Amino acid sequence: MNLRETDVSKRAFNFCAGPAALPTAVLQRAQAEMLDWQGKGLSVMEMSHRSDEYVAIASQAEQDLRDLLAVPNDYKVLFLQGGASQQFAEIPLNLLPEDGVADYVETGIWSKKAIEEARRYGAINVAASAKAHDYFAIPGQNDWQLSKDAAYVHYCSNETIGGLQFDWVPQVGDTPLVADMSSDILSRSLDVSQFGLIYAGAQKNIGPSGLVVVIVREDLLGRARSSCPTMLDYKISADNGSMYNTPATYSWYLSGLVFQWLKEQGGVEAMERINRAKKDLLYKAIDDSDFYSNPIAHNARSWMNVPFRLADEKLDKAFLAGADERGLLNLKGHRSVGGMRASIYNAVGMDAVEALVAYMAEFEKERA
Amino acid sequence: MNLRETDVSKRAFNFCAGPAALPTAVLQRAQAEMLDWQGKGLSVMEMSHRSDEYVAIASQAEQDLRDLLAVPNDYKVLFLQGGASQQFAEIPLNLLPEDGVADYVETGIWSKKAIEEARRYGAINVAASAKAHDYFAIPGQNDWQLSKDAAYVHYCSNETIGGLQFDWVPQVGDTPLVADMSSDILSRSLDVSQFGLIYAGAQKNIGPSGLVVVIVREDLLGRARSSCPTMLDYKISADNGSMYNTPATYSWYLSGLVFQWLKEQGGVEAMERINRAKKDLLYKAIDDSDFYSNPIAHNARSWMNVPFRLADEKLDKAFLAGADERGLLNLKGHRSVGGMRASIYNAVGMDAVEALVAYMAEFEKERA
Repeated sequence: MNLRETDVSKRAFNFCAGPAALPTAVLQRAQAEMLDWQGKGLSVMEMSHRSDEYVAIASQAEQDLRDLLAVPNDYKVLFLQGGASQQFAEIPLNLLPEDGVADYVETGIWSKKAIEEARRYGAINVAASAKAHDYFAIPGQNDWQLSKDAAYVHYCSNETIGGLQFDWVPQVGDTPLVADMSSDILSRSLDVSQFGLIYAGAQKNIGPSGLVVVIVREDLLGRARSSCPTMLDYKISADNGSMYNTPATYSWYLSGLVFQWLKEQGGVEAMERINRAKKDLLYKAIDDSDFYSNPIAHNARSWMNVPFRLADEKLDKAFLAGADERGLLNLKGHRSVGGMRASIYNAVGMDAVEALVAYMAEFEKERA
Repeated sequence: MNLRETDVSKRAFNFCAGPAALPTAVLQRAQAEMLDWQGKGLSVMEMSHRSDEYVAIASQAEQDLRDLLAVPNDYKVLFLQGGASQQFAEIPLNLLPEDGVADYVETGIWSKKAIEEARRYGAINVAASAKAHDYFAIPGQNDWQLSKDAAYVHYCSNETIGGLQFDWVPQVGDTPLVADMSSDILSRSLDVSQFGLIYAGAQKNIGPSGLVVVIVREDLLGRARSSCPTMLDYKISADNGSMYNTPATYSWYLSGLVFQWLKEQGGVEAMERINRAKKDLLYKAIDDSDFYSNPIAHNARSWMNVPFRLADEKLDKAFLAGADERGLLNLKGHRSVGGMRASIYNAVGMDAVEALVAYMAEFEKERA
């Protein structure tokens, strides 16, 4: 089909931190089905969420995600709205008793935001902070000050802005471990049984924005405060299959297409291999150069979000302009960090990283 | 383009109550732009919500909605998540002081749900109920028992399930009037200045599900309770242009395409003319027949959702099967009401209603 071929050849390499690149094959499928899903005469967007067709789409998406992450049977998978930011309130409203305490680990901007919001609902103990390391390293668990009876321990497995990622899972015994995995879910293997709750805004490794996936152990359901809005009560969402009201049906469908695509690629283990190769290539290009730098401790470097600086920030603008010309988009770093950031999620292939590394070498040669 | 022509010819007439039919032209545009928006090499779904391109898309959508409804300058237009059901909590959390009272008018299932949720946050006075009329008529305002110092008066302008619609706007003096217009916004002309707050889930007359539009008078901002989740605080959403966190970017874009389409049709006034003709044709077909019936008082009949019954409910199944064969989809009534329901939102054209009426006559002739 000519249209698609033309479109594909025009596709840029998109290093946006989120909303982020989606697999071209997923967009092609969505494009083909836009006006008429499987001969039914209507778009997925136009289907009742209670229809047999849509319920099948939604269930398949859930099952595929369960398969990809080997989610144990005693966990519910929820497809909700409001993004990770709404979860920052939803988690204490559901899991923190009014007279209880929750432990939080601070490793960057997103975990800080989670802490600020949680503080509005009760006592929060910051068990550890990367501040002493200028947010360039993660404090080892030996240095954490965990509470005796915390309702849960919260951390952010990958700080999208700082480019700081845990390469280990905290061990907190029987205390439920809660993780914001917005920017690294599905990027490498994961043992869900180590967690009480995992949440992830969709717009990085799952699908379009406007959807947040929550994976929660069933024994944590039914603890919401009486003041918790019905729509924010996990148990009500779980009991209604995430359809207490009309869910974000199209985003859920697209996420399902991404899950199918991930399975076709060989699942999370295959993605881990590819992602490891991608990040190795990019960090090597940075480390081998005196012109580019990344300040993060090697064992805490993010596989997904790679911030880097040029030796002379006066060259930033020229670097970005040249990148844009070559179809290497959205490399500008977050304003709080400066410099560059390459987000290399699942949908950003090795070809994109190779093109970036080649451009970096070329730019250095010309300008350094 | 062959693909599109084929798809269009296969499009069914979709009478779903929501998620509902979208204009074919909107879906075609979205389809064409799916992989490559205006030569930028990426999908709208893949754009940063902070990018110049996306901010322009979002702002244009807001401006088009403002134009369509002539929204006064002292109102904010918000594009939020969680649907109308989340608004059921969000409204009291923002507008009802803990020791205050709010007046609600009960006209069917959706206003009842709003009342139940609001009761969790304070004193709710049900100022009037259609229950005495079996929900077939709306109590006149002379019979309403309004509180002296209500924080606001809430009503649902169109009950999607019952098919009951206000053809007048309550007059409540200086008390802010709050309206759930999920299923009739943009279907006929509206004087926004009569309202303190209007909200509407997108999935009927605006766009895909997963988006809710809130139009709120600025003086009502900044009153949220201290316990209100940040993401549910209207002022924070307003101060951040509905981008406190990543919004539902693709749904917002699609809603913008619907607003453009509405402008091309001649705006809300033109839709009102078409919608009046559509509902007149359908109700006439029902009223002229002894076989079909609709129980709603004539001045309270919904223009958007037309429930009707067959004289013999044993024929329901055959009616629905025949309709499906003819590409007249989703006519089954809500389980709480039974019978049939034809939702004839803006995107359901006169051709769809004519096809339905023709089928109804045919079925009656054969089976009655």
